[in-house]
Amino acid sequence: MLVEVLPVAGYPWIPPLSDRIAVVIDVFRATSTMVTALANGCQAIIPVLSTEEAIERRISEPGSLLGGERKALRIEGFDLGNSPFDYTPEKVGGKKVIMTTTNGTRAIQAVADACKVYIASFLNVESIAHAIFRFIEVHKDIRGIAIACSGSEDRFDIPDIVCAGMLIEALGGEMQTNDLGLAAQMLYNIAKADPLEILRKTEHGKLLVSLGFEKDMVYCSTANILPIVPILENGEIIWNMD
Amino acid sequence: MLVEVLPVAGYPWIPPLSDRIAVVIDVFRATSTMVTALANGCQAIIPVLSTEEAIERRISEPGSLLGGERKALRIEGFDLGNSPFDYTPEKVGGKKVIMTTTNGTRAIQAVADACKVYIASFLNVESIAHAIFRFIEVHKDIRGIAIACSGSEDRFDIPDIVCAGMLIEALGGEMQTNDLGLAAQMLYNIAKADPLEILRKTEHGKLLVSLGFEKDMVYCSTANILPIVPILENGEIIWNMD
Repeated sequence: MLVEVLPVAGYPWIPPLSDRIAVVIDVFRATSTMVTALANGCQAIIPVLSTEEAIERRISEPGSLLGGERKALRIEGFDLGNSPFDYTPEKVGGKKVIMTTTNGTRAIQAVADACKVYIASFLNVESIAHAIFRFIEVHKDIRGIAIACSGSEDRFDIPDIVCAGMLIEALGGEMQTNDLGLAAQMLYNIAKADPLEILRKTEHGKLLVSLGFEKDMVYCSTANILPIVPILENGEIIWNMD
Repeated sequence: MLVEVLPVAGYPWIPPLSDRIAVVIDVFRATSTMVTALANGCQAIIPVLSTEEAIERRISEPGSLLGGERKALRIEGFDLGNSPFDYTPEKVGGKKVIMTTTNGTRAIQAVADACKVYIASFLNVESIAHAIFRFIEVHKDIRGIAIACSGSEDRFDIPDIVCAGMLIEALGGEMQTNDLGLAAQMLYNIAKADPLEILRKTEHGKLLVSLGFEKDMVYCSTANILPIVPILENGEIIWNMD
């Protein structure tokens, strides 16, 4: 099985998706927040590309909330930002959230045509690896896995790549990878003893700290605390209970 | 000084270039071949984007040679391929070569507007670092260095990134980097004991071996054997003797 890692949402090259699984990663913070929201009882997340699209979509989704960020900060007039700590059971329990972020929701749209789209973060890497094993066992025609790292405004982002490396390691030794997959494994193997130490030095890590989101950075760097498998289905991200 | 590494020629994000130095890297094989050609007495290399452009350009450059590749193989009717071993003193001595390659010449065009454009490879990393130091000392207004890795048909390429990491290390500890620069240094530090061992495992390394170019792969992975500083000047790559 071939695992191909893509570095940023706007990357000029995407493998053919019709016979591939896609996994979207945006450690800081969109996919970490989506995983957390579902763990806290959120019914579904509807990823959209623009603020305008979010506001328009709410008209057909009464009772839903608006969430997301621009330049890492909550969008004016929105109910929730992009911090996982915004998505408490009290706020999101039983509700849908229409969400737009700078990188994560774009990466989801870029690979939406894959056979199956999973949403991953450090919080749920192992659960995603197990879900992929189960899916491949049933769907023998799957030819590969595309791991779409979101990056940061089309810039390569170490947190996403290290998380991709962790996922490849969890998938085990029989996977072939492209060069970025090989690099991701090498970087994960340097970082795994103390991922937070490396993530602190990254551009996005420093940005979060400078904006007062250090707590988010520490939380989003924590591995395997939420056994949740979010998938994209009919344009909505839901908890796959299979 | 900020060092920003770009992963592929067609990358959607490029820093502002008007106050930056650019360094173009295409280890397998365009920049390695250019450095070798100049070392062997080639007068200048004229990088162009297409086969048609190369053929047309020769009309105004009588006596020049055509060089380059598509899918790693010599273009039909061209005098030279993209192997450094094609560019012998007998063939290129005193001549200009009009050259088009899949990745390297595109990466050169992408950053051609920088204050100064250097052509780097493992073969001449240290000489490029010294040239940058000399340039910065005279031009105090330079704000950063953009290292443009060519990649491989818009796919992330470990050989280019490891070479970028080697260059950043040669530039010394006072450089700030973007995330890809930090990753490049981490990867170089893994690879430096035996770069060839890692480069052999890469997609481009395997492709070269499968096409019978193992000798090229070994040669292009050799560090600091040619003390040459190629620069782009008026659309031509020449040996900067400053």
